[in-house]
Amino acid sequence: MAVYTDISETDLAAFLRDYDVGELLSYKGIAEGVENSNFLLHASSGAYILTLYEKRVNPDDLPFFLGLMQHLSDRGISCPLPVRRKDGTTIGQLAGRPAALVTFLEGMWMRRPTVEHCREVGAALAAMHLAGSDFSLRRANALSVSGWRPLWERAKPRADEVAPGFAEETEADLAFLEANWPADLPVGVIHADLFPDNVFFLGKRLSGLIDFYFACTDLLAYDVAICLNAWCFEKDNSFNLTKGRALLGGYTTVRPLSDREAGMLPVLARGSALRFMLTRLYDWLNTPEGSLVVKKDPLEYLRRMRFHRQVRSPAEYGLEPQGATA
Amino acid sequence: MAVYTDISETDLAAFLRDYDVGELLSYKGIAEGVENSNFLLHASSGAYILTLYEKRVNPDDLPFFLGLMQHLSDRGISCPLPVRRKDGTTIGQLAGRPAALVTFLEGMWMRRPTVEHCREVGAALAAMHLAGSDFSLRRANALSVSGWRPLWERAKPRADEVAPGFAEETEADLAFLEANWPADLPVGVIHADLFPDNVFFLGKRLSGLIDFYFACTDLLAYDVAICLNAWCFEKDNSFNLTKGRALLGGYTTVRPLSDREAGMLPVLARGSALRFMLTRLYDWLNTPEGSLVVKKDPLEYLRRMRFHRQVRSPAEYGLEPQGATA
Repeated sequence: MAVYTDISETDLAAFLRDYDVGELLSYKGIAEGVENSNFLLHASSGAYILTLYEKRVNPDDLPFFLGLMQHLSDRGISCPLPVRRKDGTTIGQLAGRPAALVTFLEGMWMRRPTVEHCREVGAALAAMHLAGSDFSLRRANALSVSGWRPLWERAKPRADEVAPGFAEETEADLAFLEANWPADLPVGVIHADLFPDNVFFLGKRLSGLIDFYFACTDLLAYDVAICLNAWCFEKDNSFNLTKGRALLGGYTTVRPLSDREAGMLPVLARGSALRFMLTRLYDWLNTPEGSLVVKKDPLEYLRRMRFHRQVRSPAEYGLEPQGATA
Repeated sequence: MAVYTDISETDLAAFLRDYDVGELLSYKGIAEGVENSNFLLHASSGAYILTLYEKRVNPDDLPFFLGLMQHLSDRGISCPLPVRRKDGTTIGQLAGRPAALVTFLEGMWMRRPTVEHCREVGAALAAMHLAGSDFSLRRANALSVSGWRPLWERAKPRADEVAPGFAEETEADLAFLEANWPADLPVGVIHADLFPDNVFFLGKRLSGLIDFYFACTDLLAYDVAICLNAWCFEKDNSFNLTKGRALLGGYTTVRPLSDREAGMLPVLARGSALRFMLTRLYDWLNTPEGSLVVKKDPLEYLRRMRFHRQVRSPAEYGLEPQGATA
């Protein structure tokens, strides 16, 4: 459930005077996006999403996020396109917050993704990586390996409240990942949060990617590892090899993985599982009881970490021998 | 903030197979409606609202609510029109709940209504009363005078937690209202919850009425009294006579009030203030701390009750001498 700042019709009308979107017909607060307040607008020129950036988003990052959407959209990636104001900029102010208007993408996210959806998302991720290769802005990933220990130190004293032995087990994983994290893989723009709720489909066809508010400059193969965690595990935490094969097949058809990238997948996937476990654990320990926010279970990702620890080769994720690799 | 039941794309697709709305393009949970879960759907044939009826709505009442919207829409009232399924019915099942699809109304609700908006809502309320006069179904108002004491008995022991003297003051009002509630005024279909968030405007023009889930058969003038409370008080709880004059003027232009209805307005307005105070008080005392639901202050309505106690004549609400009255 989204944070929700209501906006008045007069404030919204004033905000929209800086845009050429025609007459405003309706706006509804929508229950999507965890970090921001989002509204679905109907105007005479079409449908839009209005986002109010709440305090968890650093306003200094907005030019990166909005510039990236513009850049990817210009290169044929289906993603929300920031609407330019009459002065040419894309960021305004509304209800005391930075705010932006982007085009609305039709499509639905898959609560129950199939193998075909996994193949589509793999191909779209690779296309996004290629399209982002000449994006000029840079943004460090605060949630990559160097950011994990500070987050862990805050959660560790209470981690065993969630499960006995949780602290010791995670401590060992973190030490391993810090010692073995690769520094020599191809870097570029990554989405960093391409979970099913950020990918829209119309029928079996992918219709767009949304929510670039974790996007950053990091290892491209790390983004692939995030998707393996996000798309290829079943509700019982088992890994679905058929989905892994489809996702990696879709990806490598568009952008082949180098042997070094492929070889590092088990470490990257283990790190990605740790990353989502850590933010879930932090929220788990810090969300008040009785709140309507649904707490996501950090143990799901502990179980994924255990799986990745046992993986010895990228073939175990379903990576098939590729043609020409770098 | 709405109750929120998520629905899967496969369940929704199965539900929509019983309708002729074309291809589903998107659906978003929206943050409107307190009692139900609402989704804004885009389909190839247009936009719709999908409502899942949560446990606070009695399924036996749905034919009344949906039949009323159909009836009013047929008579030119702009309100959501229930979409018929292929079998001719309007109520289906989705995610284990009764569910209905209605047409989407463009328009925005006024966070800061003006005098002109009050005039429009008065006229629309009267038009709704006239259009409802030949509606064949009946539904008792569980939140009219006979329903207040049971609600009050549950809240009374803790009422003084909200403000000292609250219990004694309310007890006296309730006794007065039970003794003086009129039984001889014109009865018909009333909306019973026509607050600003249930009335849409495009510019200065009213574009539609929504949320008929408190509608029932009761005194027509009681609906007018609810609107006086809902539209004509300012944030500091002062009564805005200009707005009262506009709302009553708009109403009586379409449907004149009888002398008896006009004379009872102070009692009806006091009763209406008590009714909203009681449900707010109940929610205030029973909503857990830390919940994201915004608690509405019951004291606002205690202050309105004090105002209505002092009113001696409908002219004090802004009712002008009418032409021909029944």
